[in-house]
Amino acid sequence: MSENTASDSACGASTDSSDTESKCGGSTSDSTSDSESSACGGSTSDTSSKCGGSDSEETVAATADDFDADPGRLVAVGLGPGQPNEMTARAKEALRGVDQIVGYTTYIDLLPDDIVEGAEDIYSTPMCGEVSRTEEAVDRTLAGNDVAIVGSGDPNVYALGGLALEILESKGGSASMVDFEVVPGVPAAQSCAARLGAPLVNDTVSISLSDHLTPMSTIESRLHATAKEGFTIAIYNPWSRKRRDNYEKCCEILLEHRDPETPVGIVHAAGREDEETEIVELQDLPELGETDLIDMTTTLLVGNDETYVWDDRMVTPRGYERKYEY
Amino acid sequence: MSENTASDSACGASTDSSDTESKCGGSTSDSTSDSESSACGGSTSDTSSKCGGSDSEETVAATADDFDADPGRLVAVGLGPGQPNEMTARAKEALRGVDQIVGYTTYIDLLPDDIVEGAEDIYSTPMCGEVSRTEEAVDRTLAGNDVAIVGSGDPNVYALGGLALEILESKGGSASMVDFEVVPGVPAAQSCAARLGAPLVNDTVSISLSDHLTPMSTIESRLHATAKEGFTIAIYNPWSRKRRDNYEKCCEILLEHRDPETPVGIVHAAGREDEETEIVELQDLPELGETDLIDMTTTLLVGNDETYVWDDRMVTPRGYERKYEY
Repeated sequence: MSENTASDSACGASTDSSDTESKCGGSTSDSTSDSESSACGGSTSDTSSKCGGSDSEETVAATADDFDADPGRLVAVGLGPGQPNEMTARAKEALRGVDQIVGYTTYIDLLPDDIVEGAEDIYSTPMCGEVSRTEEAVDRTLAGNDVAIVGSGDPNVYALGGLALEILESKGGSASMVDFEVVPGVPAAQSCAARLGAPLVNDTVSISLSDHLTPMSTIESRLHATAKEGFTIAIYNPWSRKRRDNYEKCCEILLEHRDPETPVGIVHAAGREDEETEIVELQDLPELGETDLIDMTTTLLVGNDETYVWDDRMVTPRGYERKYEY
Repeated sequence: MSENTASDSACGASTDSSDTESKCGGSTSDSTSDSESSACGGSTSDTSSKCGGSDSEETVAATADDFDADPGRLVAVGLGPGQPNEMTARAKEALRGVDQIVGYTTYIDLLPDDIVEGAEDIYSTPMCGEVSRTEEAVDRTLAGNDVAIVGSGDPNVYALGGLALEILESKGGSASMVDFEVVPGVPAAQSCAARLGAPLVNDTVSISLSDHLTPMSTIESRLHATAKEGFTIAIYNPWSRKRRDNYEKCCEILLEHRDPETPVGIVHAAGREDEETEIVELQDLPELGETDLIDMTTTLLVGNDETYVWDDRMVTPRGYERKYEY
């Protein structure tokens, strides 16, 4: 297999393209390569973002009609927490069954060797650029290749399953034309919960603090509504330099509705070398925003009124203790 | 291996116990076997329930001190949707690494043959009885066996991870004493979402309509709060004969806040032979309550204001279309 990076992407199985822009057999190509045009956030003031900087919109021009070949299959595969043994057998089979694999470099690096070596081509981009990366996967499929687009966790949890369908639709393609399939994986909320014990066994909500695609006013309103109702809350994308305010606001809202001593589980970089796990109290959360423990790879699991800590585990009772003696 | 049922459970690896009650080396045993005393719901009026009928509380008497042996390991394993290829490699390794496996018969039946054959003992109960089954797992662990307690989906999603810790605590044991570990699996919300396309890619809440352990007033309040806020909603345990009213009330609340044409994905018996998948409109939901499509094995995925159906798939946009052209 050959491993392409954003600067020499090509759709065919035979590579070594000298073209520095991504092209997939479409008759036109306004799209620039992933690493140049993608904007992870809208704001350019973030000094930590490796993929911000440009606010230009990506334009995507090739349509389903531009491709001569019979389309291949497109499958969105959830890798789970990241380590190969936390993938399902079905995910591995799906990856072994395609010609090409498209994904963010960090996740491609976590794939089992035999899958990487068995693929005809791997297209990975270092950060962000979800739209152009997903378009690349769709174009490669329309050009006749069987393609897997991979991501950590599950394709339905803040991931690219929907975007793949939207792009396919915008190109005049269809889900059935590419036998579109989603292979689920273990989401971050559950893989992080497992590390902490049993913090999420009752009604649970997941909320992302990233206001890249959802207005902050909506996020705040959702936090208020669910913090009031006793849900356990899994918070994704809790902190980045340009979203300090979102984190602070979130802590403020949670503290407005919940006891300051409510247990909060913090899992940083689950499944990676720098993984770190801590259980703190809600009142400690604000000051932890500026530490290495909390960044975009962290998931926060906020307990409800009944959650307690016992023997270093976080436990949310389901209510059996009210019905049974044990 | 030998396969025990509820009527001849015993903790040791050597079985053929003639004792019809569950005993695990504890000095006292007030517990009766699972199939006799478990009450799935509090009400006895449910003619369909195979495990209701008795309202008697289960009492659990053996404590950690009653066991002479050094305790074994206890691991809660999530099997995912049910088919062996949807389990993670880690889950399979965990099951191969224990002496005994405890679980609901339906899930035990789905385990790969080599795991069932490799286990020294399997303790399965036909329905419900979660408390006594979990106690059985804890007692077997305290008696010195390495034990896995299994369930579909993930141990943190309406499952027994927390109950195992609570029972362990009530017996004077500790999580560290049994190296308590949770092996996550793909939850039903995500495995059902995969079957429908990409219905849950944004902020999502999961709510169970079972009022066995959560009062219906709380469930209603949670439905109101989240239906208002544009969450996609995964509804677990939507319908049973004795909870017809809960289902009707749920439909009523959703229709109060959401457009009658909002797409709702229905997945019945995911991963089993009688699996059935449909995408309907919210306004069709009330009349479907009395059909075979909706029962306790069904998961409902309720779209938000932006969810649409395209080419038989349910898609909830994440908002990329507002930022990018494609």
